[in-house]
Amino acid sequence: MTDALVLSQADGAIGRLTLNDPGRANALSSAMMAALSDALADFAADPAIRVIVLGAAGRIFCAGHDLAELRSTDDLAAHEALFAQCSALMLAIGACPKPVIAHVRGAAVAAGCQLVASCDLAYAVDTARFAVSGVNLGLFCSTPGVALSRAVGRKDALEMLLTGRFVGAAEAAAMGLINRAVPAADPDAAVEEAARAIASKPPEAIALGKRVFGRQIVLAPEDAYAVASRAMAENLGFQSAKQGIDGFLKR
Amino acid sequence: MTDALVLSQADGAIGRLTLNDPGRANALSSAMMAALSDALADFAADPAIRVIVLGAAGRIFCAGHDLAELRSTDDLAAHEALFAQCSALMLAIGACPKPVIAHVRGAAVAAGCQLVASCDLAYAVDTARFAVSGVNLGLFCSTPGVALSRAVGRKDALEMLLTGRFVGAAEAAAMGLINRAVPAADPDAAVEEAARAIASKPPEAIALGKRVFGRQIVLAPEDAYAVASRAMAENLGFQSAKQGIDGFLKR
Amino acid sequence: MTDALVLSQADGAIGRLTLNDPGRANALSSAMMAALSDALADFAADPAIRVIVLGAAGRIFCAGHDLAELRSTDDLAAHEALFAQCSALMLAIGACPKPVIAHVRGAAVAAGCQLVASCDLAYAVDTARFAVSGVNLGLFCSTPGVALSRAVGRKDALEMLLTGRFVGAAEAAAMGLINRAVPAADPDAAVEEAARAIASKPPEAIALGKRVFGRQIVLAPEDAYAVASRAMAENLGFQSAKQGIDGFLKR
Repeated sequence: MTDALVLSQADGAIGRLTLNDPGRANALSSAMMAALSDALADFAADPAIRVIVLGAAGRIFCAGHDLAELRSTDDLAAHEALFAQCSALMLAIGACPKPVIAHVRGAAVAAGCQLVASCDLAYAVDTARFAVSGVNLGLFCSTPGVALSRAVGRKDALEMLLTGRFVGAAEAAAMGLINRAVPAADPDAAVEEAARAIASKPPEAIALGKRVFGRQIVLAPEDAYAVASRAMAENLGFQSAKQGIDGFLKR
Repeated sequence: MTDALVLSQADGAIGRLTLNDPGRANALSSAMMAALSDALADFAADPAIRVIVLGAAGRIFCAGHDLAELRSTDDLAAHEALFAQCSALMLAIGACPKPVIAHVRGAAVAAGCQLVASCDLAYAVDTARFAVSGVNLGLFCSTPGVALSRAVGRKDALEMLLTGRFVGAAEAAAMGLINRAVPAADPDAAVEEAARAIASKPPEAIALGKRVFGRQIVLAPEDAYAVASRAMAENLGFQSAKQGIDGFLKR
Repeated sequence: MTDALVLSQADGAIGRLTLNDPGRANALSSAMMAALSDALADFAADPAIRVIVLGAAGRIFCAGHDLAELRSTDDLAAHEALFAQCSALMLAIGACPKPVIAHVRGAAVAAGCQLVASCDLAYAVDTARFAVSGVNLGLFCSTPGVALSRAVGRKDALEMLLTGRFVGAAEAAAMGLINRAVPAADPDAAVEEAARAIASKPPEAIALGKRVFGRQIVLAPEDAYAVASRAMAENLGFQSAKQGIDGFLKR
């Protein structure tokens, strides 16, 4: 699929996805969102894949929605469908049983920044930049704000959303939008380390853990513990957990 | 209104409010809260104003509630009314369609710190200090804790609330209570930059975006996206958004 | 009780608890959890105690669950009971009317890290390390994730949970898992300062404040303010608050 909007490559247990429309700044057109959604679903269903790394071809990670497409119609229902498609894509990343890691080597803007915020983990070269700058054009980044405000503090999120300013990778890491800014001289090390670490764990524990994390985080503590306690007991019944613990106890 | 408790000054599209009771450390007496609430409402209703900067006269930004007023009665209902008035003021900052930026040049204590936490953005000179130190007098800062715990992490909030300790501006910025600590030599630059940036955006996008941000942040992700997706489609119907995007596409 | 699993010592108004099973890395066996729960309840009920400091004997703060005990049965109900006991212990720390401060001088792993995250405050020597590394054995730290994700940002929590990696004390402080990393040369200063500060406040204000903080933080802002406003008025009726404020006003 080398001519596709999203390149898919299985690299051992690591599924590599590459946004591949650099001539249009990897904009999240309806076609691009569909391609990314399909590629995610394929890796989600592939038992050989344990972790997904999402990168991008070209100088820009992702510039956000395809503005020409947004302006190709004035139909409210068509616009609602587009944003609903985008929201469903972001939620699908969270619902994917395999961790998704953003590998950012350029600017991530508006829905592109939302994509980074929506990934489970994110690493960026220290020259990468991030903005939710739709407000500059009069289109406030309300949906990117959903993901952003669940990753960073309130005042950081509001400053980015209200002023449209760009933040560098180091600042993005300090606020929690990404896990770490990495030297441009060695842009892959942190991503590869995280991906290989995750790929080495029992995938059923990862899947259960990621699912339970997403469920418990929106609950009150008592309810969160009820959900998570039952999940721990269930997890302890997995053959891989029994073997893992028994191996540890024999050390 | 130069003798008022809160000075109001329209400076182009920037509405400047100044707490103006320095002799009483700009305490949030019932009269001060009413004056601030009225001044906010006036700017909220003034179509020429696009952003509000809240500063203070004198060495102290705001020392919190007027303790003498609190002790002027033992009537529980009167006390409940005072704290309800204060809570309504803080919620009004969030509900204001125009972003409110705190400009802190001195100590912000108890409900004064709550005021800073409640503003959308906040910048402070690096000599400013922050505390929620009511516990020192036996009056735990429970209402300031509402705003504080929505701006900073749990352990930072609890340390400030339980020990009453003061934190400097740099530490306040690191925890997320303010956006940035700025050199005392140039205390206005960051505030003015943010205010001018916001004033340059289409106000209807800012108003919609701020309202949706406040709504979505308390919802589960699925519900947050439903609200925000519809808002994006609505926003795209604004004339200013169409013009902004069309202008961008023609570049 | 020098031979107990948890040592209890009243030191003036400070209640000191020490996990005391260093030969088993202070693992949270059912017996250890019961002992800690009892010791907490005793200090909670003791009017002479105003703050609790939780430390540990030996090189490791706490290694998490007792894995041999977990593997001593395959009974799902028995496992559910164990995790429910652990969750109840963590919630009891939050429900304790006296602040609980973790004093970490070694590794805090899995449910041991959860214990640190669950304490109101935490200070660690700069050589301490933290992990929620159950995933390494195939047992995802779902219950530790409940406490962790309420203390630190989403991406920090997920990285620790998914990769199992250890973070040092400085990084743990930067993410909000602990309040501060302290030099190993003077490991007690920060803990003692916080404990003495809290012990010097009116305990009824601390108890009310801690209870209200826990209640309000899970509510929408309007509801949080309703709860906290009423609590402020109630607090103002305390004799200690009246005296504290009156003393301040006479200065």
